[in-house]
Amino acid sequence: MPTYELFYWPSIQGRGELVRLALEEAGADYVDVARTRTGMAAMMKLLGGAGPSLAPFAPPFLKSGSLVIAQTANILMYLGERHGLAPKSDAGRFGAHQLGLTVADLYVEVHDTHHPLAADLYYEDQKAAAKRRAAAFIAHRMPKFLGYFEGVLSKNGGRFMIGSRLSYVDLSMFQIIAGLSYAFPRAMKRRASRYKGLRALHDRVASRPRIAAYRASARRIPFNEDGIFRHYPELDA
Amino acid sequence: MPTYELFYWPSIQGRGELVRLALEEAGADYVDVARTRTGMAAMMKLLGGAGPSLAPFAPPFLKSGSLVIAQTANILMYLGERHGLAPKSDAGRFGAHQLGLTVADLYVEVHDTHHPLAADLYYEDQKAAAKRRAAAFIAHRMPKFLGYFEGVLSKNGGRFMIGSRLSYVDLSMFQIIAGLSYAFPRAMKRRASRYKGLRALHDRVASRPRIAAYRASARRIPFNEDGIFRHYPELDA
Repeated sequence: MPTYELFYWPSIQGRGELVRLALEEAGADYVDVARTRTGMAAMMKLLGGAGPSLAPFAPPFLKSGSLVIAQTANILMYLGERHGLAPKSDAGRFGAHQLGLTVADLYVEVHDTHHPLAADLYYEDQKAAAKRRAAAFIAHRMPKFLGYFEGVLSKNGGRFMIGSRLSYVDLSMFQIIAGLSYAFPRAMKRRASRYKGLRALHDRVASRPRIAAYRASARRIPFNEDGIFRHYPELDA
Repeated sequence: MPTYELFYWPSIQGRGELVRLALEEAGADYVDVARTRTGMAAMMKLLGGAGPSLAPFAPPFLKSGSLVIAQTANILMYLGERHGLAPKSDAGRFGAHQLGLTVADLYVEVHDTHHPLAADLYYEDQKAAAKRRAAAFIAHRMPKFLGYFEGVLSKNGGRFMIGSRLSYVDLSMFQIIAGLSYAFPRAMKRRASRYKGLRALHDRVASRPRIAAYRASARRIPFNEDGIFRHYPELDA
């Protein structure tokens, strides 16, 4: 019996990747349930409210003993406490979670660059609106989020986003820089000099032994056009 | 010196209202800073990163002693622990927060019904896209969220969303039913019979002594078309 069961869509990085990175860096014993033979059925059952307790609204969710925790930032807070991946003081805990929730906000906005009208319409059926939304995202929102994160990192000394050692927030920053560079390579290249601190943090996280091993493994699903970060050249700068 | 200073936009309910409701139900000593004479300047200064610690990305944020906490759900979690407005067990704490984050997700989607393309464009400049997004919201997303919350309430016995006494989640449900009924009166009326539990919960919260007193006071800002829940008849069912 593994310590954790992670439930998330089996063919994308998506929001679940933020949890996978934390589990991998922690060296935790986990199974990515929906990628096993009978896992999708088990996930859909729990999503349908078949569990004994509070049902999740959507994946990802994490089973840890009898606890079932949903919402990405909530899961990261839980894992952060248990695996030393978050500061312990009140200012540190609530601060790390504040940053985790700001990451979650950015994820919604990245998703909506390709799905501005409805999540259940095809991209092709909302392409004109997607072009307008992506242009606004690249011009205003992406610089606002990344400028904020760069400022937080710099104010904290440049090595970690919060506290004096690695936290789940640093792992999430790695994923954001990787994802935005995949989705919007031209826009990210143009502004590379503005986010030097975040790019260096991305590189440091990428080369941590457990993260490097994870990235080289089949457990890391490649970016693709079913996920949150999608590369549609017509939406890039 | 009040116990808490709340920083939020002074002319709308918005996300800050979820915090105001918790502070009011707790009977907490707080000041709504941006509604005081020099408050807006103080808020903009902290938003610009002038504080000694982690800057907020956006309002609302709460000052409690030397702690400054941003992100609505994060603030509610903090107040919930301190004022008995959340269960104390792990399952209860993480469960309440999971629901708080699902409320936050719904808020984003409600906002995007009138601003699907860009937050910095006028509604009038994205009206056609807003009509499509609002139609999808009313047809698919609103029933999905409300159906989920109704199911959670019913599974927990029908009186409270989680645990065996009032929590901040119940206060947030009051606000969601009030807000959606303001923004989409026809859509909400059509489906009234599906959300009987949530409507009864709304009424119970509304008549709690401290909430009733708050609603009758000038501290409660009326709904208006600058907030998250806006009544544009052309976006209703």
